Amino acid sequence: MAEKFSFEVIKTDPETGARAGIFHTPHGDIETPVYMSVGTQATVKGVLPRDLKEAGSQIILANTYHLYMRPGHELVKAAGGLHKFMNWDRPILTDSGGFQVFSLAKLNDIKDEGVWFRSHIDGSKHFFTPEKVMEIENALGADIIMQFDECSEYGVDHKYAEGALDRTVRWLERCAKAHKNENQALFPIVQGNFYKDLRLASVEAAKPFAKYGLGIGGLSVGEPKPLMYEMLDAMQPVLPTNVPRYLMGVGSPDCLIEGVMRGIDMFDCVLATRVARNGTALTSRGKVVVRNAVYKEDFTPLDEECDCYCCRNYTKAYLRHLVNAGEMLSSMLLSLHNITFLNRLMKGLRRAILEGGLKEFREEFYAKYGRE
Amino acid sequence: MAEKFSFEVIKTDPETGARAGIFHTPHGDIETPVYMSVGTQATVKGVLPRDLKEAGSQIILANTYHLYMRPGHELVKAAGGLHKFMNWDRPILTDSGGFQVFSLAKLNDIKDEGVWFRSHIDGSKHFFTPEKVMEIENALGADIIMQFDECSEYGVDHKYAEGALDRTVRWLERCAKAHKNENQALFPIVQGNFYKDLRLASVEAAKPFAKYGLGIGGLSVGEPKPLMYEMLDAMQPVLPTNVPRYLMGVGSPDCLIEGVMRGIDMFDCVLATRVARNGTALTSRGKVVVRNAVYKEDFTPLDEECDCYCCRNYTKAYLRHLVNAGEMLSSMLLSLHNITFLNRLMKGLRRAILEGGLKEFREEFYAKYGRE
Repeated sequence: MAEKFSFEVIKTDPETGARAGIFHTPHGDIETPVYMSVGTQATVKGVLPRDLKEAGSQIILANTYHLYMRPGHELVKAAGGLHKFMNWDRPILTDSGGFQVFSLAKLNDIKDEGVWFRSHIDGSKHFFTPEKVMEIENALGADIIMQFDECSEYGVDHKYAEGALDRTVRWLERCAKAHKNENQALFPIVQGNFYKDLRLASVEAAKPFAKYGLGIGGLSVGEPKPLMYEMLDAMQPVLPTNVPRYLMGVGSPDCLIEGVMRGIDMFDCVLATRVARNGTALTSRGKVVVRNAVYKEDFTPLDEECDCYCCRNYTKAYLRHLVNAGEMLSSMLLSLHNITFLNRLMKGLRRAILEGGLKEFREEFYAKYGRE
Repeated sequence: MAEKFSFEVIKTDPETGARAGIFHTPHGDIETPVYMSVGTQATVKGVLPRDLKEAGSQIILANTYHLYMRPGHELVKAAGGLHKFMNWDRPILTDSGGFQVFSLAKLNDIKDEGVWFRSHIDGSKHFFTPEKVMEIENALGADIIMQFDECSEYGVDHKYAEGALDRTVRWLERCAKAHKNENQALFPIVQGNFYKDLRLASVEAAKPFAKYGLGIGGLSVGEPKPLMYEMLDAMQPVLPTNVPRYLMGVGSPDCLIEGVMRGIDMFDCVLATRVARNGTALTSRGKVVVRNAVYKEDFTPLDEECDCYCCRNYTKAYLRHLVNAGEMLSSMLLSLHNITFLNRLMKGLRRAILEGGLKEFREEFYAKYGRE
């Protein structure tokens, strides 16, 4: 029987190692490099799925921890799985809940067996093990599922980071053993904090389990960007070449570009929709804080280079009015625009890899967008 | 030169006087009876204009008081008018701000010359006169504009109501004199509180100014519904037949039906979108409070008879999850559904007038929907 998941590298940029590829999944093909919009609670905030498709989204991410809490994975399973529940027929990836358990929930106890934690919603007590997380992700039914991992904080010492990594590796083995559903591709996660030796060891430990893809976690957690790039540079030579590499939780325009140029194929981030709800647009000329008085009588679109519904039909003056008046349409339109913007950036990067001129693409982008 | 506005009555139901018609306007034809969605601040909350069209909306209402406050009528004018500003190319009606000045703002002083009031946003002091309101509505550029009127509260005595009515009539004369723009149809407003003699006098006073249509204000302001119907019954025989009659601020399903059966052609109400934001759907089987536990595992659509995007793609269980999780997609989907529902109800009433069987239509509707 043919594999349900496979990855083709169409071209690798000889200078940087950036890759253009196609990831085949049961819910369709994904052209990489790709940015995934985040639908934490089984909805990309403020965007109808049909508009998400128009914006060029090929795959979205949903959140295991949040969906376990509300509405519960059993309910999603009874609904026919996430795709049907949320009306999204393209690929979905679920993270493992690890990041949320270690950042959002109130931790009770981390053991080798698993983690006791309290819900951020009602304080109720829960226990996640690798086996439990596989059960939840299986019930949710995403195409790509992430292993349960321990994401150690930026700033912990080598010993702590090593302990967290060892646990992540043991949990990977248990996840792989518990995972039975061939309609779902399990991605291991590379950890190791900001210690190169641990990062390299983590890649080696993950490789045997990276049949369909590999996640890189624990970055973009508060460290300076150059430090993240340093870690990516250290890992790039040892990453597997035959599967997509997914840099978790990263999605600002500059990080997308720098990640692609270090051989990353997949990204996700809440940034696009979160800043949209705060009234900020990402545009080819940099960030636009729509509330600013300078846009009061600006009857031009957010981004002259954008063809999204928002830019085709609305002016900055109108968007500023919506933000000032507290109208949810501002969140809706800015989210739609920001997602379109990031999807187009990825398309541009892909084209530059295929046709050559990736470094020029980067320079041209920064020349207009600015450096953050 | 041909008139820019005209109304054709296609058929009048012989038994009830209900009318099916077409109102021709510079931004297109409106099939009546019609329900208008409310876009208070130049947006129907949570619904993109293209989705509003898909929901069957022919005309929307915007609010003079709110737009005068934010972003200001001069800004809207500079943007090219409301249609362009908010990207709605079908007809728009603006109310006169009278209702908001008398209900939402802090009143300072009502004089014959006009009304001093304080902004509900920042407490700043403003003065509305009939001439000022015409200037604002002219700048906003809606197709249909309402006169400035005094809406007296439910419960005031005959003398007070008569004074408010007299002022409304004097203000009408001044509005008519100040109104110069032939691209806008000015509608007078009938007031008179809950006194039949005043209502009849008001209709007579308004008639000479009801060239294109007539508004009926001051109803649905807290009184029992039978009292509103009594007022409509009293006015029906004396209302002009050659123009649309617009019952302001009314839009619950039963009031739409009862209004149509008393010869009303146009309605508006925030109900559809307001209850949507509270998690309530209007359906052919009555109201559905989506949050209710009974829908937890209900994998059927809100309304089996509805073909809107929400009902085609989502279950009550999913919508309940969105409401519980505080996701704005719930407001978006429920608003879209509720507007579709009311637009379809109006279409059904129109068909029943044209084909006969209006009373049967009403009975069938209530048999399923229930009586409120």
